[in-house]
Amino acid sequence: MSSPRVVGALLYEGFELLDTFGPLEAWGMLSYDGEWRIVTTAEQSGPVKSAQGPRAYADCALVDCPKLDVILVPGGIGTRKEIRNQLLLAWLRERAAEAQLVTSVCTGSALLARAGLLDARKATTNKAAFAWVEEQGPGVTWVKEARWVEDGKFVTSSGVAAGIDMTLAVIAKLAGQDSAESISIRMEYEWHREAGWDPFARIRGLV
Amino acid sequence: MSSPRVVGALLYEGFELLDTFGPLEAWGMLSYDGEWRIVTTAEQSGPVKSAQGPRAYADCALVDCPKLDVILVPGGIGTRKEIRNQLLLAWLRERAAEAQLVTSVCTGSALLARAGLLDARKATTNKAAFAWVEEQGPGVTWVKEARWVEDGKFVTSSGVAAGIDMTLAVIAKLAGQDSAESISIRMEYEWHREAGWDPFARIRGLV
Repeated sequence: MSSPRVVGALLYEGFELLDTFGPLEAWGMLSYDGEWRIVTTAEQSGPVKSAQGPRAYADCALVDCPKLDVILVPGGIGTRKEIRNQLLLAWLRERAAEAQLVTSVCTGSALLARAGLLDARKATTNKAAFAWVEEQGPGVTWVKEARWVEDGKFVTSSGVAAGIDMTLAVIAKLAGQDSAESISIRMEYEWHREAGWDPFARIRGLV
Repeated sequence: MSSPRVVGALLYEGFELLDTFGPLEAWGMLSYDGEWRIVTTAEQSGPVKSAQGPRAYADCALVDCPKLDVILVPGGIGTRKEIRNQLLLAWLRERAAEAQLVTSVCTGSALLARAGLLDARKATTNKAAFAWVEEQGPGVTWVKEARWVEDGKFVTSSGVAAGIDMTLAVIAKLAGQDSAESISIRMEYEWHREAGWDPFARIRGLV
């Protein structure tokens, strides 16, 4: 049997809980068959405080992180500081180059933008922090109305809960539609299957 | 200013990620104004492995946990073992007695049932594990078709993502409908506001 493929979630102080654990719930259900496994990583291994307070525990430091097939970059208030963290941005560039897919939720796309990874690409982000994220990537075509946007290996999603819809779409692509449908039912989650579904862009006055 | 009120999430090995962190995302958004704070607790403080692999970090041991106003009991494969954990069941009985509300997600209601807290009450649970949970509480009126069920101070919800809907309903009750609506928008989450909404009961052949 070949080694399982690896999904790596980036953690940093002030990461958003649901941005991270919504997608990891879906990846976790995919990993029951042993073909995938999840790794959490941060600048240092150990406890990492979320924006909401509760702490997650990073399995490994960024420098010790195994090769990742899929990268998950959550958003959260901590992005306001991490956009200037050159070590983290360099890690994203290095790991994105060898990954099959790089996914982000919410303001996680600001980190990808500051790493230069979204230049000349289409991307989206949280609808409540849209203007701030736009400033982090002047070379990016920011899509205002989208649950998620796929451009090459980069799949960026809208705010918080949008990460679950995006992840299920990514799983459908990698493991088949049936797998994704089955996972959405096990999660008892009403999956929004359309990348263009986005009532929040209108609520926030972006369109 | 009075002390913030406390939401406490129970952790144990094999807890379900989204059961825990979907609700805590919503509680975290409510806590921005300082009136609420979140505590995570487990038999021992420190890292606790989830059913999906990633670890959360318990702030305190059960015996050191502060008084809780709201208790969150997630489900997960770990409940299969924890239903026999007398220390944990005794803790639930003791803390439920002094809490304003006791909430559960998914198979978390099996733990409440085994603690005897749901006897002669209505409750619900995950639709994929319904028969097993029913066995844990022969004195409970298990409701097959419901996103969540409220009976006295106990609010039990259906599987995984249902915990978010239930938590928003609880927040609406405690902090007002406007707060809950605002949080659902910040989460970019399409909130199911009806406790009776439950397509998964039909998908699983329960009704």
